[in-house]
Amino acid sequence: MSDPLRIAIAGLGNVGSGTAQLIQQNADLLGKRTGRTLKITSISARDKSKDRGFSTSGMNWFDDPVVMARDNDSDVLVELIGGEDGIAKEVCEEALKSGKHVVTANKALLAVNGESLVSLADSNNLILNYEAAVAGGIPIVKAIREGLAGNNINRIYGILNGTCNYILTEMRLQRRAFDDVLLEAQKLGYAEAEPSMDVDGIDTSQKLALLSSLAFGTKINFSAVYTEGIRRISLLDIDYAEELGFRIKLLGSAQRIGAGIEQRVYPCMVDQSFPIAHVDGAYNAVVVIGDFVGNTMFQGLGAGAGPTASAVVADLIDISHKRQAPTLGVTLNSLISTSEIEIGEHIGPYYVRLMVADRPGVIADITAAFRDENVSIESMIQRSRSTTEAVPVILNLHDCKESEIQRSLSKISTLNTVIEQPTMIRIETLS
Amino acid sequence: MSDPLRIAIAGLGNVGSGTAQLIQQNADLLGKRTGRTLKITSISARDKSKDRGFSTSGMNWFDDPVVMARDNDSDVLVELIGGEDGIAKEVCEEALKSGKHVVTANKALLAVNGESLVSLADSNNLILNYEAAVAGGIPIVKAIREGLAGNNINRIYGILNGTCNYILTEMRLQRRAFDDVLLEAQKLGYAEAEPSMDVDGIDTSQKLALLSSLAFGTKINFSAVYTEGIRRISLLDIDYAEELGFRIKLLGSAQRIGAGIEQRVYPCMVDQSFPIAHVDGAYNAVVVIGDFVGNTMFQGLGAGAGPTASAVVADLIDISHKRQAPTLGVTLNSLISTSEIEIGEHIGPYYVRLMVADRPGVIADITAAFRDENVSIESMIQRSRSTTEAVPVILNLHDCKESEIQRSLSKISTLNTVIEQPTMIRIETLS
Repeated sequence: MSDPLRIAIAGLGNVGSGTAQLIQQNADLLGKRTGRTLKITSISARDKSKDRGFSTSGMNWFDDPVVMARDNDSDVLVELIGGEDGIAKEVCEEALKSGKHVVTANKALLAVNGESLVSLADSNNLILNYEAAVAGGIPIVKAIREGLAGNNINRIYGILNGTCNYILTEMRLQRRAFDDVLLEAQKLGYAEAEPSMDVDGIDTSQKLALLSSLAFGTKINFSAVYTEGIRRISLLDIDYAEELGFRIKLLGSAQRIGAGIEQRVYPCMVDQSFPIAHVDGAYNAVVVIGDFVGNTMFQGLGAGAGPTASAVVADLIDISHKRQAPTLGVTLNSLISTSEIEIGEHIGPYYVRLMVADRPGVIADITAAFRDENVSIESMIQRSRSTTEAVPVILNLHDCKESEIQRSLSKISTLNTVIEQPTMIRIETLS
Repeated sequence: MSDPLRIAIAGLGNVGSGTAQLIQQNADLLGKRTGRTLKITSISARDKSKDRGFSTSGMNWFDDPVVMARDNDSDVLVELIGGEDGIAKEVCEEALKSGKHVVTANKALLAVNGESLVSLADSNNLILNYEAAVAGGIPIVKAIREGLAGNNINRIYGILNGTCNYILTEMRLQRRAFDDVLLEAQKLGYAEAEPSMDVDGIDTSQKLALLSSLAFGTKINFSAVYTEGIRRISLLDIDYAEELGFRIKLLGSAQRIGAGIEQRVYPCMVDQSFPIAHVDGAYNAVVVIGDFVGNTMFQGLGAGAGPTASAVVADLIDISHKRQAPTLGVTLNSLISTSEIEIGEHIGPYYVRLMVADRPGVIADITAAFRDENVSIESMIQRSRSTTEAVPVILNLHDCKESEIQRSLSKISTLNTVIEQPTMIRIETLS
């Protein structure tokens, strides 16, 4: 056996504790996989006294993780504090400057400050691993960076946030409204008290920005990701989606279009014939389409102590073997900048739901508004009839430019027969 | 840039040619991924003159791949000849003895002779990579050996043969018989003229033996895999499966039971609520269940020039980076032997279809035969009624031991009211 790999863990929440538990419970296996001992030498968290389900015997306690990052007692620092800058960033930087490899699960940090950290790691010839930052237990970073590394990737898309997928699944299966399900998810601990990072799509965009960089060899461009969350999705639209053969999923999608990369996060209609339409509950899934491999899909739990610990430990095992890949998939100097593609330029089919007064001429006005923008209608559903209440009109629109749809809808929303703001949901063209 | 990685390719069929095409077409990308040039220096095949869609300029031609394996002009030998011994084995051995890393897509060779080759590679401190040997383009070897390496794996199962999955899918969707679809698959080049390796489940068992070793840290035990193919699957059973909420898939499954590993390959009924039930056509999928990560699924094309070349080149990229994992997932000396678990010991629910004469007492005789072996019936379908023709009786049996079912069915097959040999299909309990 070689020397032990000495590990410092900064942050002992669910994931930090899960990581320590895995390292202790599966010590035998890890020995066989690596020919070494994985040894936690140092830990740091807010509360020293808390029982976290693992033995802290023989570990050095640090009140300040930055001091721990500089200490000589470890070879790798595991950053599980979170946040796009502040203490998490400082800890990672200090560790790299002190000659330590870094493993982090922090998608926000990498989405915003990834490049400077990668550059710091590279210039010190150190490993910066982040499998746990994207899609929890699914080894998707390794899959793109190594397993599919021979392919030019045409597109990557996925369900990257388990909380949103759980909410959308529950809405459909339990026939409940968004607010109801969110409240329950919060009670069960599946959603945060402040749910914005999840339900407004920000967490998904951070992950997409990383996947996009890895897949296309481009600089991380988080600010270029067009982002919408799932708050506006109603049960009515979920039901119509089913009727039309779709399912509503919050997808992150990136693809090369000309010299740019279209990076988009929004809830969309996915044809039920695609496997990703059937990925339910807290599961994540990522589809990678390569020029030689064709379509591949990777599925697993996207969050939680166990799956995230699995990813953190895989990174540690790589470090223990000194297995190293370029941090962002290609050598740092070959990363290219790309231009942002505005959402208005997006081309695809659309679902539109209008709530209208059932009066003569309504449909004529609506269809005229679409015609004026060259938007053509593939199908229309108008079923219930009432002279007093608003009735839904469901339109399935052929491929068109998003700016054209937006202009049509602005015009339609001013019609006095159209009672609510129009609902538009993109129909995602998959392959 | 470092020195080029010099590659010799033995065997230039579909996969060999696809590999060379990938290396040439994606040379730019490979340079960025590795910081090196991947350079094919030597090739060997049966027919020198054939055009294979890549430029052979500057490559050394060898009529004898064994001579090429000994030659000094390459750092890695890629073996794409095939076959469980003979020339393929000799080529790999000679390459390793001559100090070359080896990449192979040869599941038969590894299933039968894997351990001696691994030992030879290890003792020479060389890499023996075989991502393409299992599940084509899906990076499943890497996923188990590295991406999920922190987990004790409880079970692994999958659809590992695209030809069988294509045939079963076509039977269901086109409502055609096995022989018909096989013939068409042969015409389309999806099935071999001699289809036994595929349709009799042998190819799946070879792959399962490798996955099993990787997942459980056990010696490769191909001869212990219980194997049945799909020839006996009828359209009638496919239809009844649908009606009962199942889908028939040829699965390979391995799980730890006591001190042994149950390794089984057979067509079985899979509940439609599981994602693997929806993996259709030429796609493969592998489910890995780990103690920390939970359920993960990996899906992609299991064969064909492009996907297989993708896997071969991923292995080459690993070698170019000197990224190395223990060949069978754990250090060679820690591989353990396990006992075989006989199929008679298998416990699970079963589907049974009997073709009976519609006469009084038939059901009483059948149910008595099951009762005598303590097999209990969960549900029974007997719908059509005819006094002249055989009518199907479909039984869904509760969990029981396979030996008990077999004894019941032997007894039932002797009843003169039972007209055909009973059809038994295992219902696979998934998680």
